[in-house]
Amino acid sequence: MFSKILIANRGEIALRIQRACREMGIKTIAVHSTADADAMHVRLADQAVCIGPPSARDSYLNVAAILSAATITGAEAIHPGYGFLSENAEFAETVEEHGLAFIGPTAQHIRMMGDKITAKTTMEELGVPLVPGSDGALKNLSEARQVAEQVGYPVLIKAAAGGGGRGMKVAHSADEIEEAWTVARTEARAAFGNDEVYLEKYLNRPRHIELQILGDQYGNVVHFGERDCSLQRRHQKLLEEAGSPVLTDAEREEIGQTVTKALSRMGYRNAGTLEFLYQDGQFSFIEMNTRLQVEHPVTEMVCNVDLVKEQIRVAAGEKLGYTQKDIKMSGHAIECRINAEDPETFLPSPGTINVFHAPGGLGVRMDSAIFAGYRIPPYYDSMIAKLIVHAPTRAEAIARMHRALDECVVDGVKTVIPLHRKILSDPSFQKGDYTIHWLEQFVAAQSKS
Amino acid sequence: MFSKILIANRGEIALRIQRACREMGIKTIAVHSTADADAMHVRLADQAVCIGPPSARDSYLNVAAILSAATITGAEAIHPGYGFLSENAEFAETVEEHGLAFIGPTAQHIRMMGDKITAKTTMEELGVPLVPGSDGALKNLSEARQVAEQVGYPVLIKAAAGGGGRGMKVAHSADEIEEAWTVARTEARAAFGNDEVYLEKYLNRPRHIELQILGDQYGNVVHFGERDCSLQRRHQKLLEEAGSPVLTDAEREEIGQTVTKALSRMGYRNAGTLEFLYQDGQFSFIEMNTRLQVEHPVTEMVCNVDLVKEQIRVAAGEKLGYTQKDIKMSGHAIECRINAEDPETFLPSPGTINVFHAPGGLGVRMDSAIFAGYRIPPYYDSMIAKLIVHAPTRAEAIARMHRALDECVVDGVKTVIPLHRKILSDPSFQKGDYTIHWLEQFVAAQSKS
Repeated sequence: MFSKILIANRGEIALRIQRACREMGIKTIAVHSTADADAMHVRLADQAVCIGPPSARDSYLNVAAILSAATITGAEAIHPGYGFLSENAEFAETVEEHGLAFIGPTAQHIRMMGDKITAKTTMEELGVPLVPGSDGALKNLSEARQVAEQVGYPVLIKAAAGGGGRGMKVAHSADEIEEAWTVARTEARAAFGNDEVYLEKYLNRPRHIELQILGDQYGNVVHFGERDCSLQRRHQKLLEEAGSPVLTDAEREEIGQTVTKALSRMGYRNAGTLEFLYQDGQFSFIEMNTRLQVEHPVTEMVCNVDLVKEQIRVAAGEKLGYTQKDIKMSGHAIECRINAEDPETFLPSPGTINVFHAPGGLGVRMDSAIFAGYRIPPYYDSMIAKLIVHAPTRAEAIARMHRALDECVVDGVKTVIPLHRKILSDPSFQKGDYTIHWLEQFVAAQSKS
Repeated sequence: MFSKILIANRGEIALRIQRACREMGIKTIAVHSTADADAMHVRLADQAVCIGPPSARDSYLNVAAILSAATITGAEAIHPGYGFLSENAEFAETVEEHGLAFIGPTAQHIRMMGDKITAKTTMEELGVPLVPGSDGALKNLSEARQVAEQVGYPVLIKAAAGGGGRGMKVAHSADEIEEAWTVARTEARAAFGNDEVYLEKYLNRPRHIELQILGDQYGNVVHFGERDCSLQRRHQKLLEEAGSPVLTDAEREEIGQTVTKALSRMGYRNAGTLEFLYQDGQFSFIEMNTRLQVEHPVTEMVCNVDLVKEQIRVAAGEKLGYTQKDIKMSGHAIECRINAEDPETFLPSPGTINVFHAPGGLGVRMDSAIFAGYRIPPYYDSMIAKLIVHAPTRAEAIARMHRALDECVVDGVKTVIPLHRKILSDPSFQKGDYTIHWLEQFVAAQSKS
């Protein structure tokens, strides 16, 4: 096992990784920009190294400075957290060239999944489902009809050369397919000088469901069930759940098997997440994140696993100490991201936190790096805390989150806590009846009322 | 289900009960002394009623004031927490006479278990083991020898009329029995004018192990495993664990069956705890607490149960929603009581908490009612918080508690946190090798060094 790990990150995730290391008896090296000299991840680390000025480009993305910090302090491994350098294949490569372990997948896999087209073709070859549709460009209208029948209406006819919504047309039924075909081709020709089109099932009310996986260096891959992260605003997740309110055990088991088989064939190691759109019982792979996710705690709560410790163990060469059948999901977990933002305009609200009081009690977990007197620097992400609850049922988890938010005091800056309260009180949310579009519509309706 | 509950307590346990109520959609009425007007249990309640001056006798023990508060506010039930009126049979009776539900056992059972002799004889009749020994006074030396062989040396010969350590003599082996017999009888005659003596197994290195039980109003009783509360100083528990580091599954199952059968025959309802001395695989009943215990969270963590919600449910007439076989202990939990006391002299350290920062992250639970700026009143208990951790193994739980204590900031008053750190670092503690005498010896050794 490693005796010293450098954590190439800041904020709550740096602290999260420190906690795992500390519990494993591993010394931690924090790195920080000049703006973070008083940050909690610096205060609680065994050693801390300043790696540059506030701008992330010059500090948390500064590969040379981070590697020198690791070398000087004698770190044996680097955990990149999420964001910053976590999905930078060159960084992973450089770390290993310097004889350090990169706590994550191989550079090759990071690179492969970083290219969204390569990711899709790779996954398709490995048997992971994509959005159903035509196999490349359509030859003619009759092929369009045939594929549309196969995948089911509504369908989308899209310019092969397309982008930006042009050359894209929905057919809701067989009656509309001819017109959609004609319009899409005409627009495609006008916009791109190329009238080739293809067809995809139109997912009009998809959910974002993702699978947490973990592999060791010996081809063993397990999954820890799913997270439902449909509540997004401008592609930013706000509230996540494990499990999804709509997935059946059979669906979970099936997609889980597909995914672990694929990743095992790939030889994937360490933690990763496959993101899917899910609608009408069908999963469509969209991308893979080759790192720890912000929302990993909900999985930890329902699966009773410490994913960061697991990452460190497999990076150190340990075999997984369990198989798929040992992993059980129990109860329900919800995470509310607490961003220092105006809950109506979503404008960042940097400033000093005068009062901070974390909620407590049974089934409540706070992952944050803030404290009373902490000045939120304006240079980084606005997420200042993650509040996670776990309870036997989804209804109890919602009630628990409500009371935890009621106890939570963050004074001095605006946060999205009032928005979370409204979401938790909404009947559609309570029924689990939402898609990836729900939150934006909800926010729009709130601002009107 | 109740719609409004009055919580006849203060501090962390009042807040603990509020949390359960809030999550169940039940309104809470706080009561408070004038010293607690700004306390967190008052701030977070739906309604609060002042019931008297600081002295507990005039406020938290003031039955008339509490009952008026309940009547005025329309509460349907009263939760007494622990301490104060929680084991006062007259209070339970009066509450029910006023047409309110008492969230606890019947007054009859509180009374029965409140009398320590009645408690023992009742439990013995119900098949619960007491300290092994003679059946009343010994007839002669040869009977003493015979019983001593049965229960095993060392044994204690005690004056039947005794008390205060007089007329009490240990025999470590058969060689010493005659002398012990003679000396004990002589002393007993001199001290009490009565030379009747009886014999008990001498427990020289017992552990304090207690069983958490819960019954409904229909005779169903389950247990939630044991807690090891051997770490005590002057009969005050300081650190508790679930499960006990020494109990085997078979021992747990056996004592669990004995206890649930006994309580079911008694018709016991609501939560209760049977306290035992445990040595050499033998349990000896010492007393029963007919209420929620301070250390209930460790049981909640390993059994994945909300004991306060369960108390409320059974008090409202619900049947237990599970049977013994549904209850599984998973992982290990430790609770550190954080007392505002000098960690060396144990003198109370009241004052104002300037800075309070609760530890967070996976497997960490903080039950407290303190906050930055809180002034600890000098009138009540010195326990200001309970820090509880849960992890897959005892070793991981110890490591997690260590790191949680390292994150915990309570500034302005002295606390026993430094003592907890020392305990957690001690090799005997880490091996689980301790008795009820361990902590006092440990503290004495610390003050010498």
